[in-house]
Amino acid sequence: MTRRVGKSHAKRRTPPGAAPGTLIADPTAVQTSIDMIGYGKDQIFERQGVSIDDIRTVKGTVPVLWINASGLADIECIRTLGDLFGLHSLALEDVINVHQRPKAEEYENHVFVVTRMILASRHVETEQVSLFVGDGFILTFQERSGDCFEPVRERLRRHKGRIRDFGTDYLAYALIDAVIDAYFPVLERYGERLEELEDAVISHPSPELIAKVHSMKRDLLSLRRAIWPHREMINMLIRDETTLVTDQTRLYIRDCYDHTIQLMDIVETYREIASGLVDIYLSSMSTHLNDIMKVLTIIATIFMPLGFIASLYGMNFDRTTSPWNMPELGWQYGYPFALGVMAIAAAGLVYYFWKQRWIGHAPNKHAHGNQKSSPDPFRDNK
Amino acid sequence: MTRRVGKSHAKRRTPPGAAPGTLIADPTAVQTSIDMIGYGKDQIFERQGVSIDDIRTVKGTVPVLWINASGLADIECIRTLGDLFGLHSLALEDVINVHQRPKAEEYENHVFVVTRMILASRHVETEQVSLFVGDGFILTFQERSGDCFEPVRERLRRHKGRIRDFGTDYLAYALIDAVIDAYFPVLERYGERLEELEDAVISHPSPELIAKVHSMKRDLLSLRRAIWPHREMINMLIRDETTLVTDQTRLYIRDCYDHTIQLMDIVETYREIASGLVDIYLSSMSTHLNDIMKVLTIIATIFMPLGFIASLYGMNFDRTTSPWNMPELGWQYGYPFALGVMAIAAAGLVYYFWKQRWIGHAPNKHAHGNQKSSPDPFRDNK
Amino acid sequence: MTRRVGKSHAKRRTPPGAAPGTLIADPTAVQTSIDMIGYGKDQIFERQGVSIDDIRTVKGTVPVLWINASGLADIECIRTLGDLFGLHSLALEDVINVHQRPKAEEYENHVFVVTRMILASRHVETEQVSLFVGDGFILTFQERSGDCFEPVRERLRRHKGRIRDFGTDYLAYALIDAVIDAYFPVLERYGERLEELEDAVISHPSPELIAKVHSMKRDLLSLRRAIWPHREMINMLIRDETTLVTDQTRLYIRDCYDHTIQLMDIVETYREIASGLVDIYLSSMSTHLNDIMKVLTIIATIFMPLGFIASLYGMNFDRTTSPWNMPELGWQYGYPFALGVMAIAAAGLVYYFWKQRWIGHAPNKHAHGNQKSSPDPFRDNK
Amino acid sequence: MTRRVGKSHAKRRTPPGAAPGTLIADPTAVQTSIDMIGYGKDQIFERQGVSIDDIRTVKGTVPVLWINASGLADIECIRTLGDLFGLHSLALEDVINVHQRPKAEEYENHVFVVTRMILASRHVETEQVSLFVGDGFILTFQERSGDCFEPVRERLRRHKGRIRDFGTDYLAYALIDAVIDAYFPVLERYGERLEELEDAVISHPSPELIAKVHSMKRDLLSLRRAIWPHREMINMLIRDETTLVTDQTRLYIRDCYDHTIQLMDIVETYREIASGLVDIYLSSMSTHLNDIMKVLTIIATIFMPLGFIASLYGMNFDRTTSPWNMPELGWQYGYPFALGVMAIAAAGLVYYFWKQRWIGHAPNKHAHGNQKSSPDPFRDNK
Amino acid sequence: MTRRVGKSHAKRRTPPGAAPGTLIADPTAVQTSIDMIGYGKDQIFERQGVSIDDIRTVKGTVPVLWINASGLADIECIRTLGDLFGLHSLALEDVINVHQRPKAEEYENHVFVVTRMILASRHVETEQVSLFVGDGFILTFQERSGDCFEPVRERLRRHKGRIRDFGTDYLAYALIDAVIDAYFPVLERYGERLEELEDAVISHPSPELIAKVHSMKRDLLSLRRAIWPHREMINMLIRDETTLVTDQTRLYIRDCYDHTIQLMDIVETYREIASGLVDIYLSSMSTHLNDIMKVLTIIATIFMPLGFIASLYGMNFDRTTSPWNMPELGWQYGYPFALGVMAIAAAGLVYYFWKQRWIGHAPNKHAHGNQKSSPDPFRDNK
Repeated sequence: MTRRVGKSHAKRRTPPGAAPGTLIADPTAVQTSIDMIGYGKDQIFERQGVSIDDIRTVKGTVPVLWINASGLADIECIRTLGDLFGLHSLALEDVINVHQRPKAEEYENHVFVVTRMILASRHVETEQVSLFVGDGFILTFQERSGDCFEPVRERLRRHKGRIRDFGTDYLAYALIDAVIDAYFPVLERYGERLEELEDAVISHPSPELIAKVHSMKRDLLSLRRAIWPHREMINMLIRDETTLVTDQTRLYIRDCYDHTIQLMDIVETYREIASGLVDIYLSSMSTHLNDIMKVLTIIATIFMPLGFIASLYGMNFDRTTSPWNMPELGWQYGYPFALGVMAIAAAGLVYYFWKQRWIGHAPNKHAHGNQKSSPDPFRDNK
Repeated sequence: MTRRVGKSHAKRRTPPGAAPGTLIADPTAVQTSIDMIGYGKDQIFERQGVSIDDIRTVKGTVPVLWINASGLADIECIRTLGDLFGLHSLALEDVINVHQRPKAEEYENHVFVVTRMILASRHVETEQVSLFVGDGFILTFQERSGDCFEPVRERLRRHKGRIRDFGTDYLAYALIDAVIDAYFPVLERYGERLEELEDAVISHPSPELIAKVHSMKRDLLSLRRAIWPHREMINMLIRDETTLVTDQTRLYIRDCYDHTIQLMDIVETYREIASGLVDIYLSSMSTHLNDIMKVLTIIATIFMPLGFIASLYGMNFDRTTSPWNMPELGWQYGYPFALGVMAIAAAGLVYYFWKQRWIGHAPNKHAHGNQKSSPDPFRDNK
Repeated sequence: MTRRVGKSHAKRRTPPGAAPGTLIADPTAVQTSIDMIGYGKDQIFERQGVSIDDIRTVKGTVPVLWINASGLADIECIRTLGDLFGLHSLALEDVINVHQRPKAEEYENHVFVVTRMILASRHVETEQVSLFVGDGFILTFQERSGDCFEPVRERLRRHKGRIRDFGTDYLAYALIDAVIDAYFPVLERYGERLEELEDAVISHPSPELIAKVHSMKRDLLSLRRAIWPHREMINMLIRDETTLVTDQTRLYIRDCYDHTIQLMDIVETYREIASGLVDIYLSSMSTHLNDIMKVLTIIATIFMPLGFIASLYGMNFDRTTSPWNMPELGWQYGYPFALGVMAIAAAGLVYYFWKQRWIGHAPNKHAHGNQKSSPDPFRDNK
Repeated sequence: MTRRVGKSHAKRRTPPGAAPGTLIADPTAVQTSIDMIGYGKDQIFERQGVSIDDIRTVKGTVPVLWINASGLADIECIRTLGDLFGLHSLALEDVINVHQRPKAEEYENHVFVVTRMILASRHVETEQVSLFVGDGFILTFQERSGDCFEPVRERLRRHKGRIRDFGTDYLAYALIDAVIDAYFPVLERYGERLEELEDAVISHPSPELIAKVHSMKRDLLSLRRAIWPHREMINMLIRDETTLVTDQTRLYIRDCYDHTIQLMDIVETYREIASGLVDIYLSSMSTHLNDIMKVLTIIATIFMPLGFIASLYGMNFDRTTSPWNMPELGWQYGYPFALGVMAIAAAGLVYYFWKQRWIGHAPNKHAHGNQKSSPDPFRDNK
Repeated sequence: MTRRVGKSHAKRRTPPGAAPGTLIADPTAVQTSIDMIGYGKDQIFERQGVSIDDIRTVKGTVPVLWINASGLADIECIRTLGDLFGLHSLALEDVINVHQRPKAEEYENHVFVVTRMILASRHVETEQVSLFVGDGFILTFQERSGDCFEPVRERLRRHKGRIRDFGTDYLAYALIDAVIDAYFPVLERYGERLEELEDAVISHPSPELIAKVHSMKRDLLSLRRAIWPHREMINMLIRDETTLVTDQTRLYIRDCYDHTIQLMDIVETYREIASGLVDIYLSSMSTHLNDIMKVLTIIATIFMPLGFIASLYGMNFDRTTSPWNMPELGWQYGYPFALGVMAIAAAGLVYYFWKQRWIGHAPNKHAHGNQKSSPDPFRDNK
């Protein structure tokens, strides 16, 4: 089940007030199919599409048994698996209700871990992956087939990095690490987009951009919500007293913890930069408005007096009645004189605006030009 | 008693300086009516509208006795109940003063829990539900009849989820869980509204929207205030040394704690998104203003020079006095020449504005158009 | 001494570098007058305007002796009281310097508590109340007569709530609780004002309102500063190892702690709402400006072309010289034709603005109308 | 060395990578001069301008020896002092590098304390004062002569407050307390300035004010940076296990801690108020712009139609050609009719704007008037 | 590898899901070259461009052996070094993946420290320096040759500051201290730039400045991200139980910790100042817009009525038809009268604007003038 900011992520499958541990399938859940990998130092077998009976047969005969269930529609099958491995009903309920935050919980004979796997989609969508780590077995539940565990399976098959020398705790680490690492390329893509947005907001502020900045901020918010609880979850695995995790594996999990911190660090940096873009946008808009108003003011200030003078000499006072009535109209050089007055007024105003730095500084270049290519006296003085 | 942001929620029933433990009924309180459910593994009985004497008779004869009082007007009855079950007077005062924050307090022989039940209304309104968990009994006090406990009663009646196998602590958990779970559908509704607001602010910014965003922010603030203390309350029940809560039930309460965290997570996300909407609104307004001013500036810049030229040739200089006075008026093609000058000036200005990207980029579409349907080069390049 | 945000609250009475414990009276301090209440389970006496000698006589003869000094001008008297009850000189200095933050300090044989009593005035003003709780005595120092302790005195006189059954610690609790409770009605009043401001900012944004919002924010800031340290002070009384506070009283103090948290909760909510009002104001102003500019643009866009056409036909080209010169002026229907062109231009522009949603949507109603009474499609769709 | 926000405070004297403990004099350092005060319960002597040999002679012969060095230019002298009293070279390096944050560090046989003394200047400037508290001696190093310790010296001389009865730890407390107390009058002055700024921003917003608000915010930031670490430093002295500080003195240091908290409290309040001033400024500007645009729009909306009508009747259609051409010009009351139409249009528009509340509400009074003297219906309704 | 905010810093070299400890060279990595310094109290030798075999020969024969590898391309060589000194593969992976946050990790027989060295470039770029501190050896790995360790090497060669008397832990301290100290001159440069920006934003707000402020904020963000984790890393070295760090060295590392705090302090101050610049910019723009609009409004308000009067007397009502038609045109002093009316109207409007403080206060000086040189009544009144 994807996790969008909006109505969907406030949904819970179990109706309010229902008995805890009640398993009710999501009507949109995908059909369940189960894969199985069993291995030890010197052996490995792998089967797909196995039944509960197959698992029952194999259980206990190999050092590490990894059952991977994709799709959560078959409640009966999940409940049987739970009974078979002694899983707590509360944990099973969380497997079905796919809006859990990442967390790690210790039960009597197993550790229950919830992580969220990032999907390669347009917006931030995650899929819940639930892990049960017990003595000799690992169960993983995914919402649908397709995951980021293929490299881990490959390492198991090829005995690469000696993953088969360690127990279930190391496999759990490897799976969690794969989930965490999958966030890096996604963040890298967001970093690229953020840089593009930044350039665009500075050079061509437009209302679509502000919607994009908002969308980016929402995506980063979702990423933070997805990543942040992993930190606590992993921390709990490091600290915890459980005997299911060996000291050696804790060393690896500590490395995984570092990656989570690094992810959060990047997300927070991106969020601060994205927030700054709104300020830049408003500043650009404000500057742009100033430029527009300068144009209007210059035009109005120049043409209004000129227009007034023209109208003045368009008045119809009766020059025949009195020599005081508009004698200019009868002057020999009356018209050139009027044009001259206008020209002087216009030149004076242009000079005034030039002195005020309103013209001659290419106002519109500021808003639309490319700041990057212009010489930057500031940066140069270091 | 509902809890609105405003004068009402700063009210306390007990006058300042009154003796602690003083019980003074709220004049608006609803008449008290008491229901009773008693049960054990194999038995259950349920009675409505019982009197104190009925309770006295039954008390101690069943493993778990749940007394539910709706309406807080009958102070005498509540005090008698308190005496019957040995409840502390400070706790009883908190039952009557219905503006308590959710909390859990341990007394000598009972645990006192205050929760706030969300009501299905337009704005965020909550009703205080007080719980006393003792050895063999649970007392709940509600402000009025109607609650979210019906599914729990149903589970008790049908022995579903084996709720009757556990003691009072599990019933307390079930009730608290029902209260917490009731927040999810409310939040889901707010998520939907927030998405509608988001679309509206981007496509049709209007002053009503900003009032709605403010109202949304206030509601989310109220939700946070209602939900946040539940976390601490539940945490206290998990940590506490009291023998009234068994280890097994603590496991369930931990699950309830997760739900509270999840709720807070959603509320905080919504709050951040709602805050961003103000920025979008201001940006939209700013963009829109720019567009309006561009229209004005274009119109003024084109028509002012044209008007000036027309006024110029409306001047009444006396062509008969001197050949210098407006000879153009007497040219054979004077009028077409003047029209031509105007046409060239207008075309030049239009061209200038087109070069400045002020026209030909459909400025108003930005403010009112639907960004969503427009092709988005950004999103496509991933 | 009142405590305003501004110069006054950064003042200290004792000059920098003076010896600690130096008692220097504030020149504006009120004359000291001392009241005394002594009581036990079965007895109570009350005297006003007592002298130090009276106190010396009574001291030790009653289970609880409450000395209340109003006015801090008589340094000598306060020092003698301090010597009589063995109070620490540092604590006495804090009694005189009335700008202390609320705090609780344990000394060898007494606990020293500073609280701040809210005064019923226009702005947030508080008066420092200092308490010394010792074995068998309580000393309170107020800046001036008039306090919120009358209900406590009444309870003592009437033996109500059995306050006389407990010791000095319970009396201390009762006094602190009275101080805390007095904040609730003040906050209630601020809540009412905030709602009025909110309505006003949405319906009639005016510059006076922004000054009022700022003033409200300052008052809430002062309230937070006054209330917040009480939390720590009370917490210290709950936690502390002192034998002067019994376990039973701690239960009551815990209740008082809850009230402080509730107060802070309300103040923080009000602060967030007040902050949002600035956004609403700016948004309203921005919307209003858009509306004004639309009016200007519409008027200019319609009348500039019309005026241009009129000016055009006001030109004086000599129709006698050439048939090319303004033949329209001689047309039979020239004038109706010109009027028609103007009418068509005006109608076209009005239609354009209507299509752009600039007119026909009652722009000014947005800024000044009452949003509340208008049908709200958003709220209705739930 | 003063500490300005800017390049200077990121400077360190010791070049990066130099050996720790390297003493390199600041070229701008003032010449060193040493004073000495020795005292016990019944004796005190004071000498100025002493040499190292003088100190060597006196050392160990009096209960408390206070060496005060002003000016840090004489590295050799400082190193010799360090050797004489067994001071750690790292601490000595911090004495010379006068950009240390306030801190307290425990060394084997002495405690090293750095404080920052506020200077009475226009902007926030502080001088580093370093203290070494050992068994029987106190060394203080100041950047230059002139300090806030005179009252302490006076108390020593006059045996006031019995400061001579205590040891070196009490003297250290007295000195630190003097440094802390010196911040209060400075903050008081900032409080006054802030109130003036507040009044100015509300009544006469001007761009100089926003620069002043920014400068105020920077100063408060510097104050916070100077004061904040004192809290930690004092806390360390209270908590620390060192036997150099007696329990009795710890009581006094706790008092000093309270003062630091109080200072921080005031600074934070001022910072929040200063931040709010930017909002007020922007709101005022926005309101002012609205008022300006209203004036422009009213003028344009009234005179554009009037001007259009006047232009209309200035057209030169040939009335002789056709009776359809401007017959109004020949009417007997044509001119009064035209004037009447103009008057009615103007009156109608004025009425429209009055109904829209654009005029008759004295728009400009808002921006420039004095809100304070105007009757305020809000404040009165309480 | 440099570390820019953008796509690059979200990159990890190891593909997601790869086995931990996998060493894959960055294709852009520089060729590896190894230097070696061995020393004890009385000896020192230094060799450049050594091979693994050289190291193997020397290892164990000197008290302290410092191997410094520049360039990370030669994976084989790094792995062999790791095997030779028993380094953990996870740590080696972090050496290769050069986007680690600064951290310190304890392994069985060595401490692994990651720091980031600031480069002297235009923007904030850092290079990862990894340290392994073991018993008798220190290994440092840099991304490329050229570092800030030269002063340390010099001190080793000259036996200055007795660095050769201490062990590997002291050398590790010296190297970390050199890395930390290198941040100070960079910050100093940012402080200078920030002051220039501040002056520029106040006196000449232009859109390039806001882009520069944004760039400055991003750089400071990067600096914070680079510096902040050093604090935790150093803290871990102080606290840690490892026997590899002696108590004496811890004293020095504590000094290094102080420097980190000081750096963070400066960065945070700069960040707050930079944030304030956006407010100043918007305020300046807003003030500037007001000034522009005032000019436009004044011009329009003066010339529109004048133009209207001129147009009025340009109307062509037929004076011959009726004495009511524009008799003014025939007055003897009609024209001077009309000019007089215009002059009075203009003078009246100018007076009105002067009274409104719109003119005569040099509006444009505010936006472009230099506030600094103007007399400042505020600052003077202290």
